[in-house]
Amino acid sequence: MESDQDVAISTRIRIARNLKDFDFPLYLNIEDADKLTNTVLDTMKESFDDNYKFFRIRDLSVKERLMYMEEHLISPELTRQIDKSSFLLRGDEKATIMINEEDHLRIQTLLSGLNLDAAWRLCSEIDDKLESKLNYAYDSDLGYLTACPTNVGTGMRASVMLHLPCLSIINHMNSLTEAIRKLGLTVRGLYGEGTEASGNLYQVSNQTTLGQTEEEIINKLNKIIIQIVGKERNVRKYLKEKKGFELEDKIYRSFGILKHSRLMSSKEAMNHLSALKLGFDCGYLLNDSGINIIELMIEIMPATMQKKLNVDLDKNERDKIRAEIIRNHLSRMEV
Amino acid sequence: MESDQDVAISTRIRIARNLKDFDFPLYLNIEDADKLTNTVLDTMKESFDDNYKFFRIRDLSVKERLMYMEEHLISPELTRQIDKSSFLLRGDEKATIMINEEDHLRIQTLLSGLNLDAAWRLCSEIDDKLESKLNYAYDSDLGYLTACPTNVGTGMRASVMLHLPCLSIINHMNSLTEAIRKLGLTVRGLYGEGTEASGNLYQVSNQTTLGQTEEEIINKLNKIIIQIVGKERNVRKYLKEKKGFELEDKIYRSFGILKHSRLMSSKEAMNHLSALKLGFDCGYLLNDSGINIIELMIEIMPATMQKKLNVDLDKNERDKIRAEIIRNHLSRMEV
Repeated sequence: MESDQDVAISTRIRIARNLKDFDFPLYLNIEDADKLTNTVLDTMKESFDDNYKFFRIRDLSVKERLMYMEEHLISPELTRQIDKSSFLLRGDEKATIMINEEDHLRIQTLLSGLNLDAAWRLCSEIDDKLESKLNYAYDSDLGYLTACPTNVGTGMRASVMLHLPCLSIINHMNSLTEAIRKLGLTVRGLYGEGTEASGNLYQVSNQTTLGQTEEEIINKLNKIIIQIVGKERNVRKYLKEKKGFELEDKIYRSFGILKHSRLMSSKEAMNHLSALKLGFDCGYLLNDSGINIIELMIEIMPATMQKKLNVDLDKNERDKIRAEIIRNHLSRMEV
Repeated sequence: MESDQDVAISTRIRIARNLKDFDFPLYLNIEDADKLTNTVLDTMKESFDDNYKFFRIRDLSVKERLMYMEEHLISPELTRQIDKSSFLLRGDEKATIMINEEDHLRIQTLLSGLNLDAAWRLCSEIDDKLESKLNYAYDSDLGYLTACPTNVGTGMRASVMLHLPCLSIINHMNSLTEAIRKLGLTVRGLYGEGTEASGNLYQVSNQTTLGQTEEEIINKLNKIIIQIVGKERNVRKYLKEKKGFELEDKIYRSFGILKHSRLMSSKEAMNHLSALKLGFDCGYLLNDSGINIIELMIEIMPATMQKKLNVDLDKNERDKIRAEIIRNHLSRMEV
């Protein structure tokens, strides 16, 4: 077992905050956007001891922007208003403060495993430090005001990334997604709204932010996540007992293909890596060289791959190099 | 390169002969069938020094019969009239004399590679020895008389088994089959008339036996086979040069699946083994442990597998053991 990360991969919380004296980012002119950015940077310098790196979107190449997105360190929205947006990334990459995204501030924390309380504490701590210096737009009835009404209230979205290969094998994902939606939560693919659940990775998050406290939202989400994790683990146990050979076959076929193929699309790689992770987590394969499948999944995404290799690649070249990166990782295993 | 057997795997020639004083096998009663069998056996004892083993179909289990068929040592027809049929198998398995198949005698020779002349010489030699003692049904106009009119004349069918993976990849097999048919030859799958070309293996053979000498038939077939072999080799060269990475990917994927899967149907195994053979023959993979793919293809056929292991297996168990046999063979390779 990969500790507790066999099913719950990572936890992400972000809150939306706006400053009273500025228009929402979409209506902000570049001069005011820069003013706001400097205000935030000054506050950071005064209040934060942690090591944060500052990036303006306009100073990054398209590939670099995509890489930060693929790593879930920034949101796709942040790159829509190139001249106004920027972000601060904490050295350990556990926190990002996005400036002039849809809202003036988006504070995001990203921890591994199911870690809602810790992610919320960290988020809240950063928020408190900023709030002590900045003039937040806040209404005593509505809570924090946001650019999009769905975020009004706590302005918080908490989400947990889950690896659900066995619920997928037994075709249970559609009905589970329906059930989760009825509980007021959303289920999305790896890269948010409308994206496919590539690699059997699903993000489960709260839908509404109004009328509940952050703690209530987190507690409810936590309870449901624990149930889903339990379901996935039960199905894994069931399949191991009843369909062990079929499961082992599926896992080893993916392993064989990953270990030997010469060309591989990102989508295919995600699916085989999902099976490989399942193989590690169910004990069918020994992860003796300590491969981190989730990190590898990100490493082989188009932009991250090209950024790290510092080259421009067409689709065919990417598929070639992706297969090579995976083969290299797997060559260290003693199977 | 696996010597000359990169494309032409094996050559098989069989001739049909009947004895004057007996009805054709279908109309023969069991007593006369036994009498005929004993006549042939007596002739064998007198005229043959070679070591032949004698098998009556009725003394063999269904699995044993199937095994000899899978190995192409006897024809499916031989097992249709269980009480009348038998065969003599030469120690080196290069020759079989079938008794009371569709005809009284079917003499078959089976050599590796493209070897029509030698196969014909061996067949002819056995035929001459038998003819010197037995009273063959022969008409000076029609030639050897046979139960089925399509065999009248020389009574000979010569066929060469070809491995044509690259002509298949470029979707050329249908038009090639058409062209070959127009030349008066037939193209069939691994197990004769109506069987699928599993593992990209095709048998090309003469269609008619009347109005031509054996040598003419063999020369014509040989010329056409050499052309097909040349075509397949050219396409291999072309694909290596122009689509080398795709070809290598296909071969290594098959290798990865063969090396690691836990369950495999016979059909799937044939296709991946075909790709593996191509990998050896094109130099993409080193056959350092000397695996004979064609022998392995036969080893994993349902009956041969069960006969050799001496067990009864259902489909799922066969798929499991087939995968295991293949894994064991491949584990000796140093890839």
